Amino acid sequence: MKRKKRRDAGRPRGASVVDSVLAHTLAELATSGLEGLSIDRIAQRAQVNKTSVYRRWPTREKLVGAALEATLGQMAAQLPDTGSLRGDLIGLLTPVAGLFEQPAGRALVQAALAETSAPAILLLSAKSLSAPGNAMRQLVARARARGEWSEGVNPQQLSFMLVGAVLHRSLIEHQPVKKAWLAALIDLSLQGVLPRKRTTAAH
Amino acid sequence: MKRKKRRDAGRPRGASVVDSVLAHTLAELATSGLEGLSIDRIAQRAQVNKTSVYRRWPTREKLVGAALEATLGQMAAQLPDTGSLRGDLIGLLTPVAGLFEQPAGRALVQAALAETSAPAILLLSAKSLSAPGNAMRQLVARARARGEWSEGVNPQQLSFMLVGAVLHRSLIEHQPVKKAWLAALIDLSLQGVLPRKRTTAAH
Repeated sequence: MKRKKRRDAGRPRGASVVDSVLAHTLAELATSGLEGLSIDRIAQRAQVNKTSVYRRWPTREKLVGAALEATLGQMAAQLPDTGSLRGDLIGLLTPVAGLFEQPAGRALVQAALAETSAPAILLLSAKSLSAPGNAMRQLVARARARGEWSEGVNPQQLSFMLVGAVLHRSLIEHQPVKKAWLAALIDLSLQGVLPRKRTTAAH
Repeated sequence: MKRKKRRDAGRPRGASVVDSVLAHTLAELATSGLEGLSIDRIAQRAQVNKTSVYRRWPTREKLVGAALEATLGQMAAQLPDTGSLRGDLIGLLTPVAGLFEQPAGRALVQAALAETSAPAILLLSAKSLSAPGNAMRQLVARARARGEWSEGVNPQQLSFMLVGAVLHRSLIEHQPVKKAWLAALIDLSLQGVLPRKRTTAAH
């Protein structure tokens, strides 16, 4: 591989090159899906030498993985400490719902479900889609400290319930995930179906 | 269209022809997906004249719709009255989890997520996947009568939570949906995350 001396004119190196490549990767994922993703085209659109891209991310899987990690990292960094489990869960789920409403999020779920996907992409998708489960750790610790967490509850299962419900609503029903819907979903997960105070049977 | 006099030798007419065609439709859906589904091939495999198939189900969408309705109808018919909401939900979710572990269920979810699917197929998928929500109606009525249903709870949202969680677990994580996992999921939805009895903060 030849090393080109010329750098992309007017573009700073380092962090912002990474940001640009990763942003264009998500855009490319949204328009072409995982199967049609082209590193050459991403480099061209990000105005970066393609050798620079291949040097950092030798495979398509690694590039997409990095783009998703960056997105999910941003989500986790923005995770608010609202003082209540309800508020924290709303803060966590809102950007997840936003991701599913974008073509990139849809492409990722499609790839995760496609039988033909390379195992590497399957693993990547599974990891990425479960990432809110990892971001939940600090949220769970705070909830425990406040006495808002029943001992038997598995955080991953709560994450699957909430992310799965949003996925069902957004990607299968094609219904918008509105604030009120999301709040009702979270309240249901917090309170449970069974009445908390014994009342006489419903009307 | 010419009407053929000759019937398929040795095959009874009516219900069992329908059963056979619909069973082969599900099998074909599992191997070829919705896009590759061939009515001619289904007729051939079911040993039925293809004109008989086209007469009953003029389009691919109608045929797949009928096959899914039959499957979901069987599920609903088997819905047990166990005397508790917990037992009823386990009875409802177990076959749904089983469907998702079969290629036909997977093909349906893939079709529901594919941007390229015909709108008719999209609608069909949405309707079929939500059907457990419809089957839930009688289950909810019984739960209400027993005082096991909080007034604010939306049955469709509970269905999305449970089906969505199973979908996430089975089709994205590629993990088996075992009995104990399903029971814990249902308990979480019934009891909620927040402790029911006030206790001091967790260890």
